[in-house]
This record gives sequence, C-alpha cells and structure tokens, in this order.
Amino acid sequence: MQKNRRYPPRYTVAILAVLLVAVCVTTALAQQSRNDPAGDKTGNIADVRDAQGNPFAVPEPSPNSADYAEQKRQYDAYQRQAQVEPLAIRLADGVGQNRVAINMMWILITGFLVMFMQAGFALVETGLCRAKNASHTMLMNFLVYSIGMVGFWVAGYALMYGGAASVPGLGGLMGSGFASEFSIKLFGKEFGLFGTRGWLLGGEAYDVGVLTMFLFQMVFMDTAATIPTGAMAERWRLAAFIVYGFFMSIVLYPLFGNWAWGGGWLATLGTNFGLGHGYVDFAGSGVVHAIGGLCGLAGAIVIGPRIGKYTRDGKPVALPAHHIPMALLGTFILAFGWFGFNPGSTLMASGAGGLRIGVIAVATMLAGATGSLAAALYTWKRNGAIDPTMAANGMLAGLVAITAPSGFVGPIAAAVIGAVAGILVCVAVTFFDRIHVDDPVGAISVHGVCGLWGVLSVGIFADGTYGAGWNGVTGTVRGALYGDWGQLGAQLVGIATLLVWAFGLSWLFFTVQNKVMALRVPREVELAGLDMAETGVLAYPDFAVTPIATVGAVAAASQLPQSTGVPTVHRPATEGRA
Amino acid sequence: MQKNRRYPPRYTVAILAVLLVAVCVTTALAQQSRNDPAGDKTGNIADVRDAQGNPFAVPEPSPNSADYAEQKRQYDAYQRQAQVEPLAIRLADGVGQNRVAINMMWILITGFLVMFMQAGFALVETGLCRAKNASHTMLMNFLVYSIGMVGFWVAGYALMYGGAASVPGLGGLMGSGFASEFSIKLFGKEFGLFGTRGWLLGGEAYDVGVLTMFLFQMVFMDTAATIPTGAMAERWRLAAFIVYGFFMSIVLYPLFGNWAWGGGWLATLGTNFGLGHGYVDFAGSGVVHAIGGLCGLAGAIVIGPRIGKYTRDGKPVALPAHHIPMALLGTFILAFGWFGFNPGSTLMASGAGGLRIGVIAVATMLAGATGSLAAALYTWKRNGAIDPTMAANGMLAGLVAITAPSGFVGPIAAAVIGAVAGILVCVAVTFFDRIHVDDPVGAISVHGVCGLWGVLSVGIFADGTYGAGWNGVTGTVRGALYGDWGQLGAQLVGIATLLVWAFGLSWLFFTVQNKVMALRVPREVELAGLDMAETGVLAYPDFAVTPIATVGAVAAASQLPQSTGVPTVHRPATEGRA
Amino acid sequence: MQKNRRYPPRYTVAILAVLLVAVCVTTALAQQSRNDPAGDKTGNIADVRDAQGNPFAVPEPSPNSADYAEQKRQYDAYQRQAQVEPLAIRLADGVGQNRVAINMMWILITGFLVMFMQAGFALVETGLCRAKNASHTMLMNFLVYSIGMVGFWVAGYALMYGGAASVPGLGGLMGSGFASEFSIKLFGKEFGLFGTRGWLLGGEAYDVGVLTMFLFQMVFMDTAATIPTGAMAERWRLAAFIVYGFFMSIVLYPLFGNWAWGGGWLATLGTNFGLGHGYVDFAGSGVVHAIGGLCGLAGAIVIGPRIGKYTRDGKPVALPAHHIPMALLGTFILAFGWFGFNPGSTLMASGAGGLRIGVIAVATMLAGATGSLAAALYTWKRNGAIDPTMAANGMLAGLVAITAPSGFVGPIAAAVIGAVAGILVCVAVTFFDRIHVDDPVGAISVHGVCGLWGVLSVGIFADGTYGAGWNGVTGTVRGALYGDWGQLGAQLVGIATLLVWAFGLSWLFFTVQNKVMALRVPREVELAGLDMAETGVLAYPDFAVTPIATVGAVAAASQLPQSTGVPTVHRPATEGRA
Repeated sequence: MQKNRRYPPRYTVAILAVLLVAVCVTTALAQQSRNDPAGDKTGNIADVRDAQGNPFAVPEPSPNSADYAEQKRQYDAYQRQAQVEPLAIRLADGVGQNRVAINMMWILITGFLVMFMQAGFALVETGLCRAKNASHTMLMNFLVYSIGMVGFWVAGYALMYGGAASVPGLGGLMGSGFASEFSIKLFGKEFGLFGTRGWLLGGEAYDVGVLTMFLFQMVFMDTAATIPTGAMAERWRLAAFIVYGFFMSIVLYPLFGNWAWGGGWLATLGTNFGLGHGYVDFAGSGVVHAIGGLCGLAGAIVIGPRIGKYTRDGKPVALPAHHIPMALLGTFILAFGWFGFNPGSTLMASGAGGLRIGVIAVATMLAGATGSLAAALYTWKRNGAIDPTMAANGMLAGLVAITAPSGFVGPIAAAVIGAVAGILVCVAVTFFDRIHVDDPVGAISVHGVCGLWGVLSVGIFADGTYGAGWNGVTGTVRGALYGDWGQLGAQLVGIATLLVWAFGLSWLFFTVQNKVMALRVPREVELAGLDMAETGVLAYPDFAVTPIATVGAVAAASQLPQSTGVPTVHRPATEGRA
Repeated sequence: MQKNRRYPPRYTVAILAVLLVAVCVTTALAQQSRNDPAGDKTGNIADVRDAQGNPFAVPEPSPNSADYAEQKRQYDAYQRQAQVEPLAIRLADGVGQNRVAINMMWILITGFLVMFMQAGFALVETGLCRAKNASHTMLMNFLVYSIGMVGFWVAGYALMYGGAASVPGLGGLMGSGFASEFSIKLFGKEFGLFGTRGWLLGGEAYDVGVLTMFLFQMVFMDTAATIPTGAMAERWRLAAFIVYGFFMSIVLYPLFGNWAWGGGWLATLGTNFGLGHGYVDFAGSGVVHAIGGLCGLAGAIVIGPRIGKYTRDGKPVALPAHHIPMALLGTFILAFGWFGFNPGSTLMASGAGGLRIGVIAVATMLAGATGSLAAALYTWKRNGAIDPTMAANGMLAGLVAITAPSGFVGPIAAAVIGAVAGILVCVAVTFFDRIHVDDPVGAISVHGVCGLWGVLSVGIFADGTYGAGWNGVTGTVRGALYGDWGQLGAQLVGIATLLVWAFGLSWLFFTVQNKVMALRVPREVELAGLDMAETGVLAYPDFAVTPIATVGAVAAASQLPQSTGVPTVHRPATEGRA
Repeated sequence: MQKNRRYPPRYTVAILAVLLVAVCVTTALAQQSRNDPAGDKTGNIADVRDAQGNPFAVPEPSPNSADYAEQKRQYDAYQRQAQVEPLAIRLADGVGQNRVAINMMWILITGFLVMFMQAGFALVETGLCRAKNASHTMLMNFLVYSIGMVGFWVAGYALMYGGAASVPGLGGLMGSGFASEFSIKLFGKEFGLFGTRGWLLGGEAYDVGVLTMFLFQMVFMDTAATIPTGAMAERWRLAAFIVYGFFMSIVLYPLFGNWAWGGGWLATLGTNFGLGHGYVDFAGSGVVHAIGGLCGLAGAIVIGPRIGKYTRDGKPVALPAHHIPMALLGTFILAFGWFGFNPGSTLMASGAGGLRIGVIAVATMLAGATGSLAAALYTWKRNGAIDPTMAANGMLAGLVAITAPSGFVGPIAAAVIGAVAGILVCVAVTFFDRIHVDDPVGAISVHGVCGLWGVLSVGIFADGTYGAGWNGVTGTVRGALYGDWGQLGAQLVGIATLLVWAFGLSWLFFTVQNKVMALRVPREVELAGLDMAETGVLAYPDFAVTPIATVGAVAAASQLPQSTGVPTVHRPATEGRA
C-alpha cells in the first residue's frame, strides 16, 4: 500500500550531493586532448562551405577509399595551387571562423528562444487552471526547467548524443563526431540503443561545440518535460513530480531521442531496411511533443480526474480557466519561441542548404495561423462564440504538427497541416473529456495527438525539395504524395514506437511510482487548492475570490501548510466524480 | 437597414476552403525554375560585398551599357586574374554564403522580435481596458495575427512586394528582383500601383529569399492590423472585426506599402519629380503606424464612443485601466520588439553600410526614453502624479516617431524627436477625448499622430549620413535642416496620401460595413462586458470584481452566451452618452 | 530640516532642457573625421581574424618597435605576395565585413535580451510586493529605464568608456580605441579614474561601433539601476527616486565601471602590482549586481523598514507576495535575458576565441538551475513546502553568481557556484530580515551578497582555459584552485572597493538626499498604498481586494492624489514597527 512520504525526501539531497562529487572526480580524471574549451581551435579552413555544402579545402584521401587515384589527383592539384595562393589559404581560416560563428550564433539564439518557451508553457497551463492552484502549477513549470536540466546534464545528454553523428556546421569536435554508440546486432543489422559519452559534460565534453549542442538539446528536452505538468495539473504532488522530472530527463526522452536523432535504430530504418530516409522528425513533433503528450496521457490516466470534473452520472463539468490574458500571453510566447524550435533545428545557417531556415520559419508561422483559425471557426460554429482557449490551443496544435515536417514542406502544405491540426485538437479535447481522461489544459490533445499527426504528415507531404542524404540515404525526403511510400512506412514505425515507448513506459513508471509514493495530493488539499499545502503561499493573497473559488482558497488560507498523511485512494475515472 | 448576422457566417468558412483549393492548383501550375526552395543556390561569389557595398566579382557588362569599353576592360582583367587565383574564386563562394546567412539571420531574428510585439500590443490594450472586456480584447489581438497572416499570405504580399525592387543582401531570387509591378502612365511618368506576383507564396515564390522577406513584411503588416483593435476596443463585434482583418491585410496596408516600399509611385517621387529621395519611411512610421492609427481613427468615429464615456453634457468620463502591470509589461515587450522593427529594416547587416544597425538601435532606444520621460513629466506637472499609462504611451509615441527617421538621424536628433512625440501624445489624447473620439487605449494618438510626426521628421532631421542612392536618387537623404527642402515636400505628399488613403478609405469601409453587418455589439452586451457573449468565457472567473465592475460581469455570468439580435443604433458621438 | 517638495520639481525640467541645447551645440562643434556614422568604413581586411585571433593582414611595423627587422621582413613578404594575389586581398574586405557584422549582431541581439530583463525585474519586484503598491513598483521599474538611459547618454558612458581600451571585434573606431582616460600617478603607477570622451554621443562618438558598444553598456547600467527599486519598494517617493536614477547612471555605476572595465585602476592591478590579471569580472557580478545590491542595502537602511514589517518586539512579519505567477514570469524573463548578459559579454563571436560563447551560455544555464534547486530544497527542508519565491530567488542568485566567472569556468564548476549561491541567498534573506533591513524582494541578498560571491569565485574557480592576455597580463586567468593566489587577491581588492564605493557612497548619497528631500512617502500614503498618491491610478481598480488589503486600497480610492506635506520622520529600523 502506498503512503504519503514526509517532506522533504532526504535521499534526493543526498543523491545530488553524491552526483556533484562524482562529477568533480570524473572531470579530473578525464583526458582533455581533442576538445576545445577556449574556442580557439574550432572554425578554420576545414569549415568553409559553399551553398551546396562543398568544402573549400580538399582533404587528404585515405588510401583505402574507393576512388583513391582520382581523389589523390584532386588533392595534389589543390596542394600545388595552395603553394601559389598562400594568402587565399590563410584567408580561408577567417572564412571558416566566420561560418562556425554564424552557425553557433544561430544555434544559441534559437536555443535561447526555445528556453523562453518555458515561460509560455507556465503561463498557458497556469492561466487555464484555477486560481487556487496557480502557485502550484506555476511552480511545477518553473522547477521542471532546473530539474530537467540537472538530469540531462548528469546523464541524459550522454545517453542521447553520446553516440551522435557529427554536427558538421559547428566544426571542431562536433564536426568530426563526439561519439560512441552502444548498439546490438539483430537480423544482421546494427541497432543503436544509446550513447556512452559526455556524462556531466566533463572531460572531453568541455568543448565549445559540444556545449552549444547541449544547450540546444537541453531546452528541447525541457519542452517535453513540461508537457505532463499540464495534463496532470491541479492534483500532482510536488514530491512525486520531482521524481518524474528525473525519469523524463534521464530515461524517457534521451533514449527515444537517441533512436531518432542520435544515430539510433529509428534513424537507420532507411539504410538498414530501405524505409525512405528512416524515421524523419525535423524538429520533434514526435521526439519532443508526442513524447511529452503521451507521457501526460499515461500520467492523467494513472492519477485520475480532478475532484468535481465529472458528475455522478459521468458527465464532464467545465472547470473554467482562471486567467484568459495569462493563457493567451503564454501562447504568444510559445509562438515566438517556436521560431527557435523549428528554424533552429537546421543546426546551421551558412553552408549546405542552411538558408532553408527562411522557408522553415514561414511554414511554422503559417501552420500556427491556420491551426488557430481552424479551431476558432470550429468553436464559433459549435458554440456561437469564439473560445479564446481553443483558439490558443489551435495555434499550438498547428505549431506542434508542423514541427516534424517543417524542414520538408512549403507554405501551402504547411497551411494545410496546420488547419487539420486545428480541427484535430478540438475533436481530441472532446474525445478525452468523454472517456474521462481529465487533462485540464488540453496538453494530450495538443502535443500527443497533433504530435503524432505531425510525424505522419512528413510521410505524406514532404515534397522532395530538401533533405538530400538525410540519415545517410541518398536523394531528398519525399512523402507518399511525392512517391515515396517507404517514408510513410518509416513514420508509421515511429508512431508505433512512440505509443509503446512513451505511453507504455510512462504508464508503467507512474503506476509503480504510485505504489511507492502517492502521485496525488490528499483530497482535502485538492479541494482547498494545492497552493498553501504544496508551495506554502497563495498565488493571489491580496485578491478576493468569487464565492465558488472561495471555498477552497479561504479554507487553505486559514490553515497551516500540511500534508496530513491521510492516504489518497487513486481510482482513475472514478475519483473524479463529485 | 443593418442587422446582426447569425454567428458564424458560413461564407467565411466557404471562402477559406475555396482559397485553399485555389492555392494548391496555383502551386501545381507554377513553374519553379528560378527559385531556390532548398537554399542551395543562394549565397555565393556574386553576393560578396565590402563595407561600401562594392561587389567582389566583376559582372560581365551588357554591350548596351554606356561605358561598355571600360567595363569590358575591367571584366577581362578580373577574368584573367581569376585564372591565376582559382582558390580565391572558390573561397568567395563561401564568403558570399556567409554574407547571405548573416543577412538572413538578421532579418529572421529581428522579424521574430517584431512578431513578439503582438504580445505587447495585446497586453497594453487589454491592460488599459476594463476587466469585463479583457477576454475579448485579448482575443482580438490574438486572432488578428492569424487572420492578417492568412490575408497577407493569400494576396497581400503579392500586391505589396510582387513588384518589388531587389533586396540585394539576400542574393538569389530576391537579389535579382522578384517583380512585376502594375503601373499607369500619367504626365509622362510611370506610377506603380501594385505588384502582381507571389500569390499564396506558390510557384516561384517558394524560395528561401522570398519567404524570408515575407516573414519580415508579414509581421509589419500585423502590427498595423492590430492597432485599430485598441481604438475600437470594448465594443467591436468579432464577426465585424474578422472582416476588417482581411480588409487591412489585403487592401489597405499592402497598397500603401507598395507605393512607399514596393517601388510604387510614392517611392519614385524623387526620380520622377525631383522631390528629394521620394517618400522616405525607413521602418514605417507612416506605412505601419499611421496606417493603423488613421484606420483606427475612422473606425472609432464610425463605431462611436463606449457607453458611459461621456456625460449627458458631453464631459469625458475616465474609464480606468484595469491592470497597470499588464499594460506596462506590454510596453516593455513592445520596446523590446522595436529593436527588431527598426534595426531589422536595413534588411542586411553585412555589406553596403549594413553596420548602420548599431546607430539605428541606439536612436530607437533614445527616442523611446525621451518620449517616456517627456510624457511622464508632462502628466506630473498637470496632475501632480506620474501617470504610468501615459509614461507607457509616451515611450510608444517616441518609438513610433523614430521609426521613419531611425535610419537617417543620430542620437541627439533621435532624443529630440522622441521628446516631442512624448508631449504630442499627451496633447492628442486630450484632444480626441474632447472631440468625442473615444479611443480606450490612445492608439490613434500614439500611432496615428506620432506616426505622422515621424514621417515629417525625416524631412526635417535626416542628417545626410546615410541613404546614398535611396529610391534611385544619388546622394544621401537630407531633411530641411540639412538643406533639402524637396525631401520635406516628399514627406508632406506622403502625409497627405496617408490622410486620404488610410483615414478616407477606412472611413468608407467601416461605414459601408456597418450598413451590411453591425460593427458594434448590442447595448446590453456592452454593458455586461463583451466577454461572455463574444468569447463564451469570462477573463477572470475566479476573481471577485469591485461593485462598479460587478454590474456587468455578474450579469454576464448569469446569462448564456447570446446575441439577441436587437439591432444596435450607431450614432457616433452620441451613443456614448450615458 | 527636510520637507516634502512640491510635485513636480521644475528644475528637473529645466536641467533637461539645458542639456538638450548643450548637446546640440556640442555636436555642431565636434569634428567628425575618424568616426563612421554610415557604417561604410568599418569592417574590412584589417578585421579578418582566425580562431586564435591572428590577423590576416600584416600591418606595417613602427620603426620604434623592438623586433623591427623581423616584423619588417614579414610585412614585406606579405606585401609582395599581395601583389600576386590581388583577388584574395580584395576578398578579405568582404571577410572582414562579415566578421564585424557577426560581432555587431551578437552584441546587439544579446543587448536586446538584456534590455528585456527590465521587464523581468519589473515583474519580479511587483509580483513580490503588495497589490496596493503594484502600480508604483511597476512604474519605478519602468521609469528607471528611461531615466538611466538619459543619464548614461548625457555623461555616464563618457565617464565609463570615454577612456576605454579598444574593442577589437568591432573594428573601425572601436577597434583602434576611442579613448582619453583621466588618471593620476601614485607610487609611480598610473591609476585610471574616468574617461573623458563621448558626452551625449555627439561628435566623434556618432559612429556605428561606439553606438553599438553604448547600447550594450547602457542596458547593463540599467540592470544595476533597477535593483534598488526592489530593496526600497513600497515606500520610496518617485521624486526622490528620479534623483537617485541620475546618481546611479552618472556617478555610482560609471566610475566603478571605468575602474573595472574601462581601463581604470582595478583593471591594472595585474600589470601594476602583479595581482593575477587584475580585477576580473567577466559580465558584472560586481560591476552590475553588487553595485546595485549594495546601493539597495544603503537605501534600505536609510529609508527604513515598511510600516508593519516588524512587531513592537522586533519580530519580522511576513508581508506576502501579491502575485506569484507574475514573479515567476519575471524570473523566466530574467533567465532568458541572462543569455544575453553573460555570453554577450565576449563582445564578439568570430575570431580570438569568440566561440567560447557556447561554454558561457551553458555555464550560465547550469548555475541558474542548481541555484534554483538548492534554494527550493532548502526551503522544502525548512518549511515543509517548496517556496516559489525562494526557488525564483535561488535561480537569480545562481545567475548573479555565475556572471563574473562565466567566462572562465566549465559546466561542473558553474553548477557548484550556482548551488552555493542558492543556499547563500536563503541564509542572507533571513539574516537581513533579522537585522531589520527590510528588503521586500530580496534584492540585497540576490544581487549584493551573491554578486560578491560571484566576484570571489573567479579567484577560486577560474580554470585557466580562457582569458589569455586579459587586462594586458600574459597567460590565461586562473583562480586559487588552479594555482594563482594573486588572482584571488585582486578579487578581494575588488570586493573591498565595492563595499566602500557602492555601499559607502550610496549611504552618503541617500543620507544627504534625505535631508534635502524626503526619500519616503508620508505615513498615510504608505498605509493606503502608494498607487493613488504617487501614480494617480490603482493597479487593479476592477478587482476586489481581500479585507486586509482593502484597508489601504479603498482609503486610497476615496481620496484625491495628495502629498499633504506632513513631514515624515525617517528613523531606520524603528519606523517599521507597527
């Protein structure tokens, strides 16, 4: 039987302390030869590229390479001419330095924008919840940034990208690859499972390129991590939530991320089995949003609906959003940050088609617009008024859906993908409400359902204008509409994997965790609002609340912080009935 | 006689559907030869420039050119030397790629900042309105982003820039020009009226350069579109507002934009009639802000003042802002976004004086500061307290005013321009209040009046340090203080055109629209607050409101969403009397 | 005896007017020969650098230089080869232009992010105060941006950087140095005291490089200026606050800034006295945060605690934060802006190790995370609930602490520095509460205490991977852990200087100012809330407040703006007792 643990769990503190010591030792032991912590070895003649990505300097060929003779001839010619033009050769170092600086700036600035999306998520979720839980909802969204970062720093990044293929636009250590993938052999093929380098960013990972990559990947992980805080809002204990934070940042996200982006087995479905370019997910409709949304689905099922969400005969009750401007400000911030999310995922701006960023930004913008309009018109038709919360969710749905295909489609396809997502999210919200999965903010519909739709849409709409050589497969990425049904197959394998991994493992995790420590606050805390008991403060102590809202808040204000330890019984889909 | 149409107007949905199909067909038919959707043809040796904008590669001269012999000699010398330095020539492709990447990053990132200004407008306007209309005001500002984007995507961009001169810093298709302007001949001169290419961004427009340009121009248009939502707040029906959204994004903004920025007749006042460099508006005090402000003026006149704004004897009543921190946060966001608005309008950072961005950013910052301080001191002197709403409007006034001259003035002139705007906005707010034009947020004064002041100030303060060859006229841009009275003349023509076009056409549009469908919500909806009836939700359902505010909100909460259809009589300047 | 002066002080207006005229005259008189207002002389072959910062072009050596013969030989060889490769030489102008454009974009964009931090400060401080003072707290944070900017524009920048060493990454005038430092001779060494060029940004300072530098430095100064608004919130008269704004932006900040960053005597402790690299403060834990925090400490002591903060027997009373989501949104914005603050402080991205920005960004991020987690766990352990206000202050504490060492440490040291700051801020808040220094938002603890900790940590943790030649001292920057105890000494001198200068001078300033004009609002204004009397509006007029909060707000609403002139007696540490 489960019980409420005492606050605070001291082992958490102890674990953190041990980790910190471990890190210091690791660093001291690690060799630091190939890495470049100062940034004075990265970005030189070897990094000069033209628009197609052709290198300026001809590298010395390996004697084992197929057309060694021809390559050697070109290399010798280049060397001879280099003797004639020493200034051009020296100048090339400056050009390569500029290129890596451009690409690093692009990755960092777009990464900063993605980090700022945390504020957007916090506001959307808090605005859509009730005032009595505002401090708690806000705090979960705030803490997840720090918790997730620590988990990803300690181990998540190494598991995800410790076996990564190179990021050529960054040159240096990331250009040549910072990698050692653990893989197994099945059916005569290598199946990459996880990376093995970069723990605690110590040793060789103390490198300008590796850390730039870490920053960008870290904020993506945190996006996934913050999604379930919406689906499980207004009832989730902070102690249980913190444990979840490490589960997401060390296990759930990094492993799927490795398979899809880190050179793992989903990425090699193309080279191994001829399924298009393997699983293709440009900026993470699947890797980020579906992971978060499906984990939230599992969590919402295990934790059960909020008290009062369903009448005794099972009818859903609307528990209205407490702050519409807050929710819409959050949506604006998310739409702003998405300009980092998708265009930044090129990981470069200069060389090798990096200028595609312009197309990606417009596709992103248009899908958000048509998603928002579609949802707005849908609610207008159904309710006779345009629901701002659904207009906002429609925009997010369009943005989630375009995330995976944003690199591979033009403006018109983007608009269609977004509009479909806008309708889809409205239908999905109603659906989950009806099957008694209580998701206070619509996170499952927005990120889970539309995330999967985004993954699928790559397999349909990718138009063959981009992605030459993606995942090691020659030719550009094409969906079924443009003749490559194998790509659609790869996307379907990805979707199946997401359902099994993200929903299945999360369900298992939350179920087991719920046996060990209660996921949910005690009933009286939920009725009073979680703020006093969990965060020690009311969100709005100076404001009078309406009679209905008062019941909880006043009761809370009149009591000390408490977690009385009365065990909560968690019966999904029945607990919610008032 | 007008009547309230049923929600939702199905034809809107139908039109959108038809447009979507049309787009797909258009795309399929369009030839895609010159364009570069992948970004692998844009940015090469032809794009290399030094600080003055001189190209590195000497282009082959046309046999028809004036000094063909000299040009041919230079070209031949370049070709001969290129044989000697093949590595330098190849390296130049990498340099050109870097330059276009720099410029594209600059345009995109500054464009993202401008997009984020939508959040600023939403917060300023909502904060300055009353709590009972907060959800509605927020929603208008949210929807206008999507509506405007769809309109501008479908047709607005083609009308505005489908005949545009080249954007050399982007190279590729935008470098050589993506253009076919429709123009008429008057007095023996060409008068460009609108562009004709790029509908739905299909066909040739599916290009990295064109879409980058679209993104930047789209967020500018949306800034104009969101301004009238402030001037007409707290009474505008969403159904009528949506129709306005397409009017602004397809007609009002793009046509004036074409005349000023797209190579149309205002831009050629210099080459055609010797008026300075023609109409000069660096980042849009006129094109964006005056268009929005004057449209808002027309709308505010046609829709009439809010109920309760004037006493029976015509005295204005203060209807206080409901959320000061919200309004000031919005102002901070706008000031942040303005660093995209003005410096981004160089459309480049590298080559041809692109480094001027540093001066532009400081001019922008200083004008906002002096505008804010001037308004703060003005209200302090008048009221004995510093009014935060006017301090905010003063900053916005300074920023609006510096927008047009920001490219052409130094720090000191910028400070003067901003300080004048800060006083001007205070005077204008009082003026419009007195003549019974009810503008709840001061949008007409900030964007209309100070927008015109900004346009004028170019003709006074432009100091001749920048703008060589602007609009095809040799020499730098100089205002009357620096000797060019013709420039002042061109600015005055621009102001006259703005008054006729932006105010006149908008007045006509709103007047006609008001005959077809009511602009304004029914009287009882306005009294109750627009939130329940128009958006189906209250903005702050958990918070108790003060007695005065309660009247509306509680009444609203106790009723179902409704639009009873009682026709509203719109009598400007009388309706407002309680 | 002090008395309340009439609003508004007309001399302020007069001074501003005089300054404006003075500026215009200055500009007209100034010679404008070396500067580049158009940006068409900056960024060329002389600015090309490789990763180590080696220049491409070999400059002509001075006949007086030590190894003239060798340098002349290299120069001649370069000149000869340049004759052979004219295209490479011309191409280099494009490469240098790209490099300066990259660096300018980096400085501007990161500067914009820092400017946006003003919104973060405003929200954190306002959210942590009470609703009855929300308009006033917000307004102080809003006005300080404009006031500070005007002061820094008129004189502060010239004092701080008018004697600055060069900023090589910007080329042009900033590359060669824009400088004339006033210094005195002591013990046979030069002690730089302040700069003497760039008043009003007129004359030679009208230059793309100088203005870019101004923008970046201006937003840093404003960060310092806004910190005391937190420490002295809920009782500070606007009139007194405005005078403080000029004190900070013209005197307190620029002089210390000159000593530390502008080439003054703290920066030359290494070359003059062999103390490591002199005082090292990468992005301003000391220059910005400790200056602001210690000034706030002096102000909080002089102005005294808020009424009701202490019981008659001296026990501190909690006056709870009125808006938790607002405070946490502000923290998110600050964390976002900090990515500009620290990484931007390289003042370059390309060449000479500019790519270190990736390491700096990650160090910043990690220190914020561990600071937040440490504070969260600390409050959890102490109170049984995670306090969101302390989780937020913990993140800010970590960010403040990492600011000085961010350039010189790796991820693991950053995490340790942040975690220590997170604990430190909790202890400090309790300490100041106990000694009756009433700091409503914890600004003294966050910025003052953790700022000093950041300065100290450079002397401990700097790991020798960066900073070669910093402040003219050869070798990289190392702390005591890496063998350079002299560096620790220089940091301790910096800390002592900060305590004397920032705390001492501020205490003197506030004490004298308090004799001339009251710092504090009258008692009845403070009880009612400052909003009506000082800003003329309530922050939230439409919302009902709770009984306790009502007392003040209703009383305020029922009265006209007033400053009755009843002299306030300021008795620090006793006034606060109810």
